[in-house]
Amino acid sequence: MKKTFFTAGPAELYPTFEAHLRSAMDEQVGSISHRSQQFRDIYKHTDEQLRALMNIPASHGIFFLGSASEIWERVLLNCVEHESFHLVNGSFSRKFYEYAQSTHKYAHILEKSFGQGFSYNDVEIPEYAELVCLTHNETSAGVQMREADMHKLKRSNAKKLFVVDMVSSAPYPDLDFKVIDSAFFSVQKAFGLPAGLGVWIANDKCLEKAERLQKYDDTHIGAHHNLPTLWKNYQKFETPATPNVLAIYILGKIAADLNKIGAGKLRKETDSKAKILYKFLENSTNFDPFVTSPEHRSATVVVANTKVPAAEVMAALKKQNLVVSSGYGAFKDSQIRIANFPATSSEQVEGLVAELAKFG
Amino acid sequence: MKKTFFTAGPAELYPTFEAHLRSAMDEQVGSISHRSQQFRDIYKHTDEQLRALMNIPASHGIFFLGSASEIWERVLLNCVEHESFHLVNGSFSRKFYEYAQSTHKYAHILEKSFGQGFSYNDVEIPEYAELVCLTHNETSAGVQMREADMHKLKRSNAKKLFVVDMVSSAPYPDLDFKVIDSAFFSVQKAFGLPAGLGVWIANDKCLEKAERLQKYDDTHIGAHHNLPTLWKNYQKFETPATPNVLAIYILGKIAADLNKIGAGKLRKETDSKAKILYKFLENSTNFDPFVTSPEHRSATVVVANTKVPAAEVMAALKKQNLVVSSGYGAFKDSQIRIANFPATSSEQVEGLVAELAKFG
Repeated sequence: MKKTFFTAGPAELYPTFEAHLRSAMDEQVGSISHRSQQFRDIYKHTDEQLRALMNIPASHGIFFLGSASEIWERVLLNCVEHESFHLVNGSFSRKFYEYAQSTHKYAHILEKSFGQGFSYNDVEIPEYAELVCLTHNETSAGVQMREADMHKLKRSNAKKLFVVDMVSSAPYPDLDFKVIDSAFFSVQKAFGLPAGLGVWIANDKCLEKAERLQKYDDTHIGAHHNLPTLWKNYQKFETPATPNVLAIYILGKIAADLNKIGAGKLRKETDSKAKILYKFLENSTNFDPFVTSPEHRSATVVVANTKVPAAEVMAALKKQNLVVSSGYGAFKDSQIRIANFPATSSEQVEGLVAELAKFG
Repeated sequence: MKKTFFTAGPAELYPTFEAHLRSAMDEQVGSISHRSQQFRDIYKHTDEQLRALMNIPASHGIFFLGSASEIWERVLLNCVEHESFHLVNGSFSRKFYEYAQSTHKYAHILEKSFGQGFSYNDVEIPEYAELVCLTHNETSAGVQMREADMHKLKRSNAKKLFVVDMVSSAPYPDLDFKVIDSAFFSVQKAFGLPAGLGVWIANDKCLEKAERLQKYDDTHIGAHHNLPTLWKNYQKFETPATPNVLAIYILGKIAADLNKIGAGKLRKETDSKAKILYKFLENSTNFDPFVTSPEHRSATVVVANTKVPAAEVMAALKKQNLVVSSGYGAFKDSQIRIANFPATSSEQVEGLVAELAKFG
């Protein structure tokens, strides 16, 4: 009996994943050269499907790296000479901030406690910050930042570069890439692939910055996967080094499947499944929604406080072949995290809620 | 009709690959958490199998990264404060050298022309070089450096760190890891997996160096996949970020398959297949072995000069569903490269030779 994964990622594989994997095996995608026309066609197809799904304009390139964590480092090395600024409200936005420190950037931080979200009015951006690092969905705490607030913030600080971590929400957020300079995600979350590929979207302004920094003696933009090299290879739909070709192929196929549904309908389905989950949590005696402010509640990673220890809840679910994530770090025992990605249907969410309801 | 790939990587998948992929799908490996016991067991199994296959002692950790190209950068950032030294005789050893320049290291170079190899007596190592970068198998030129020469070089320069690029030969080279500090490879070559995983082997001396560099203000060792963080996570068989879990799982299974054959027998089989190829090239009127010195001829990537344009040779082979690599860079038209990895049998090599023999 197969399990259903409502985990925050790695997560449930998208229902069409195995069929695409079989096609890839039939086409021997695992053996083709990454300098062949066959590979360039794969890259181009995935690029086109992601552009359509996420409304990405020609000003932005789409690059394939090892993971979103790698992209944290690449965006800092390539877009920051001295100072970055980070909105931090959980473990992953904090890691992004710590990456800036590790690469010897002067990293400014505006921090809120776990479970709190950021709105436009909360944020004042330090004068010399070159890059503003926002997290659309903080996976550890289940907190989202609204797109409108991110866009407004960039418009008020037009000369700074803005990057959005959308690791555990893409393609859900309706980002305006005419405004946002860069964003990134990994494929083992809402796209329903196994881990092993990070996707970096970055515009010509990021490239200009990287090209400028590349000339300096006292800083370097990295040798591997630096933006000028990625961009140059991208012009012919190639990558600087051998990438995860199989994942790029399947990502394109799944993005095409999602395009058949349509981004708008996908968002509505996600919202409607999130509503089922939050409504249950609000009416439950054992569970509570952790994030109190409804406008900051994540649609894609729902975090619940639980009175019954999380381990007991997870063990009971496991007997029904249902898997959720534990709370993050210090919240391991008192919270569970439920991913709400396109791979799980309304019916499956209802089934999960029915099991959770047994705890009251 | 399926093709047989004699390409230098991505290459023919190992014959058991698809069976292991099916097991992974049955076990839902694509969805499991990288912080679960199930993942730690997978990492541990792959670690054990690689240790057995390549005779890796406890002084060395085994780490999973995005690609071998990423590891070029990581080893330079983590093991070099000021100066590295590179033996360069082709495109990939040159890229390693260029990575050192891009990360602002003072990179010394000893260069030989394409097709020439290095022996112990050729090499004098600059006094202040901290890291000596050797390439066991230069994939672009089909040139190998003998293990004995690498070991002798390290013994004569015991205080320097030595790293061996074995991207397109591992697990073939019989490296003595009591001598060699670090080595790395990618899985889409002799291990017969699709691309998307690099494996970095590094000892406690590399770690000590990285920990020392981490304290300095004027250099940084990177934020993502730096050695102290990799090492710390490795103590519990975890990775700092979500890795390519599926590839780690299958790599362990294929390493176990190779262990059943045994490293010694694998080497003998590789040598015997290489002999078939070189013997044919030596007696052919159309083809010549490119590398003239037999001691520097690669056993795993055989490069042949061809009088008939390479494109014609490759087109004729393609009709028989046989795929080889073109010559690298400027040698695109005048050479072909034939991979000799464990995934292709003696019979398949004989079949390829029979087709090539039609050119005389």
